[in-house]
Amino acid sequence: MISIIAKNIVKSDQVENFKSLARELVAESRKERGCIAYALNQDIKQPNVLTFIERWEDQAAIDAHNASGHFKRIVPTLGPLQAEPGEVRLYREVE
Amino acid sequence: MISIIAKNIVKSDQVENFKSLARELVAESRKERGCIAYALNQDIKQPNVLTFIERWEDQAAIDAHNASGHFKRIVPTLGPLQAEPGEVRLYREVE
Repeated sequence: MISIIAKNIVKSDQVENFKSLARELVAESRKERGCIAYALNQDIKQPNVLTFIERWEDQAAIDAHNASGHFKRIVPTLGPLQAEPGEVRLYREVE
Repeated sequence: MISIIAKNIVKSDQVENFKSLARELVAESRKERGCIAYALNQDIKQPNVLTFIERWEDQAAIDAHNASGHFKRIVPTLGPLQAEPGEVRLYREVE
């Protein structure tokens, strides 16, 4: 099992736009094989920080996600809405 | 429901020590009222980045967690093991 924490620092006037574009990405990703959880989360104190918290069965599922039509169509539209570089990290749970 | 992503950048020679100290924090926190999920996660590419991914029912549960004996005893022992400041963010899921 692999968790992904993908943090986006969004231009303040583009937050609603980002959320709207991400909605379809969330819905389509949840239908994928190997997707255990996938949600967009908004920082309570800093609402322009929008972070995907994801859980996948294995790396193969993540590779398929990154190659999916919805990923390749929607993710490039999110980049220009960002105020500064974000951060994507892949994690394994410590037993 | 509130998610916490608490990232720690640990001194490379203190990673095993950090994981060992965190083990009791994870076990005790999971027993708390309002704790939905609580796990330590290790970055796959950068193993000295250790991140708690947590889910709590509400802010009251988080307040009780921060005031708990195990939190107040164990968290201060983790600070000196860090190579640089980490990051703690509280999130609400975007519907």
